[in-house]
Amino acid sequence: MSNGFGSTSNARESRQWIYMSVPEGKLTTDIFKLQTIEIPAQPGPGEVLVRNRYLNIMPGNRAYMRMGLIAAGQPMWSLGVGEVLASNDPGFVPGDVVEGLLPWQDVAVVPAQTLGKREGSYPVEHYTGLLGQTGYTAYFGLLHAGQPRAGETVLVSAAAGGVGSLAVQLAKLSGCRIVGIAGGADKCAWLEREVGADATIDYKAGNLAEQLRQTCPDGVDLFFDNVGGPILEAALDAMKVGGRIILCGNASQYDSDQEMLGPKGVPLTLILKNLTMRGFPYKAYEQQFAEAERNLWAWVQDGRIKPFYHVVEGLEQGPTGLVGILSGANRGMAMVRV
Amino acid sequence: MSNGFGSTSNARESRQWIYMSVPEGKLTTDIFKLQTIEIPAQPGPGEVLVRNRYLNIMPGNRAYMRMGLIAAGQPMWSLGVGEVLASNDPGFVPGDVVEGLLPWQDVAVVPAQTLGKREGSYPVEHYTGLLGQTGYTAYFGLLHAGQPRAGETVLVSAAAGGVGSLAVQLAKLSGCRIVGIAGGADKCAWLEREVGADATIDYKAGNLAEQLRQTCPDGVDLFFDNVGGPILEAALDAMKVGGRIILCGNASQYDSDQEMLGPKGVPLTLILKNLTMRGFPYKAYEQQFAEAERNLWAWVQDGRIKPFYHVVEGLEQGPTGLVGILSGANRGMAMVRV
Repeated sequence: MSNGFGSTSNARESRQWIYMSVPEGKLTTDIFKLQTIEIPAQPGPGEVLVRNRYLNIMPGNRAYMRMGLIAAGQPMWSLGVGEVLASNDPGFVPGDVVEGLLPWQDVAVVPAQTLGKREGSYPVEHYTGLLGQTGYTAYFGLLHAGQPRAGETVLVSAAAGGVGSLAVQLAKLSGCRIVGIAGGADKCAWLEREVGADATIDYKAGNLAEQLRQTCPDGVDLFFDNVGGPILEAALDAMKVGGRIILCGNASQYDSDQEMLGPKGVPLTLILKNLTMRGFPYKAYEQQFAEAERNLWAWVQDGRIKPFYHVVEGLEQGPTGLVGILSGANRGMAMVRV
Repeated sequence: MSNGFGSTSNARESRQWIYMSVPEGKLTTDIFKLQTIEIPAQPGPGEVLVRNRYLNIMPGNRAYMRMGLIAAGQPMWSLGVGEVLASNDPGFVPGDVVEGLLPWQDVAVVPAQTLGKREGSYPVEHYTGLLGQTGYTAYFGLLHAGQPRAGETVLVSAAAGGVGSLAVQLAKLSGCRIVGIAGGADKCAWLEREVGADATIDYKAGNLAEQLRQTCPDGVDLFFDNVGGPILEAALDAMKVGGRIILCGNASQYDSDQEMLGPKGVPLTLILKNLTMRGFPYKAYEQQFAEAERNLWAWVQDGRIKPFYHVVEGLEQGPTGLVGILSGANRGMAMVRV
């Protein structure tokens, strides 16, 4: 059937990762299959042909599998950024830089309504990092939801990760004392040396409660949590009366097929200590994305913050990259360069 | 040894409940022992002799046992109200009505610094109910922490209890639609008929998730939770995006010697739905107790709210009364009349 743009004689090939089946337990690369498909040169009505540039890899991708949002037998996808090659929708023209849920392909035909146009002339990788979901999660989660005040003790989990490494810097910018939690002595050293954490906790070294007492002797005012699970449970005991907990992620529980119970201190520790716990989806702040973009970029230009990127080279490395970041391979914001 | 107030020739007898040992599993009356002791007629320096009038019984008393705040082998105590018979402290004179942590006795010598004087001429039972911990917990928890808005759906657990029955009425006063959770069809009928709930859920009838869907088809804006555990877990799934949860109690977990894990949806459901969960100790609002007293009393005088009291007659019935309310015997605020 013709789509009005002529035959598929100009069709091109694209690699495509298929998500074959729901993982049992931890994610492994063998549930993905790389195949080559034919992409029509011209998209159908309301569609856009996109050349993918960067694809986000983050623990949340694994959560989407658990939740069934990524469907078995279908192309793998994640948030990403690309360039419009051809458009059959009035909202886009070739050359536009677009952001959206992109299939893990070199080139893809995508419904226009799932894409957003990115204005500005930032280097394109920033749209999947500093000026995208990762950066905005740190920005709105820490600054807007968290309301850090100078002198406060701020605890950040998964501090060496994409959101975490930025949250550490934004808390520092707010005049706080920062304690970062990460896995391994190397990452902790990096957090103190490069990212600016005042102290760190290596959760792999064990005895989390004692490490929290030593690094936060007066308690935690603000906990920015990316991981949930045992770290959230231990942190509840370390909170000051009246403390705030911003829940940004549950990474400790994503890479599993078990449904876990919550931390022991809910609700009693929250009641006794007058704690507030706030779940935080960055999309809730959509109206203020322009503010975040402007401020984050200005702070980078001033040298006050630094985006740390973990770039996995090549679409063919996507699944390996995702498995890697689930086991904590990355320092900073992780993405696949297509 | 003389205390400067003469001999103990005017000593009087008082009954006294001793909390003998930490309960294993559910609380039973046999861990309490009633004995008769001799009370000096005059208190020592910095002490006050109090005739107990009403003693609070609430699920929280059982929590204090778990937490070791009520010590085995010592007199049982709870928050209560009494009248000063004699004072050896400049802050109190005979006839003062005082509130504080009182031992379960007819008469007791109490450190003056643990007591607060209650002004006003309210019927004395209100200081353990409407104008005390119970009433203030409902008032500040629902109105200040909860910020109910007209038209919202408010869910209240343990809605037939002391805090709950008042919270239902305060939410109604705020123009909300109220769904109350209670145990048993009788209590649910009472909540709808007498207290003003628009709909009720009998959690003992099972299938909590389905009952929540039926009574809150558009979801819950504000959940005022007194019980934690499985009800909190089910309610998380029933919350609207952006909903607020006020945590006032964990009654489902108090009457046990097990330390329970938290609800499944922490943190992921909170993140996905942008929920806020706030622990709420009423003491945090101490500076505004006068406002609560004024408003609650005015609303009672106007007939806009009604304090429901469950009065257990006689000190000798104290343990039976406490065991009773832990199994849900009460409708409204429970207290022992000494």
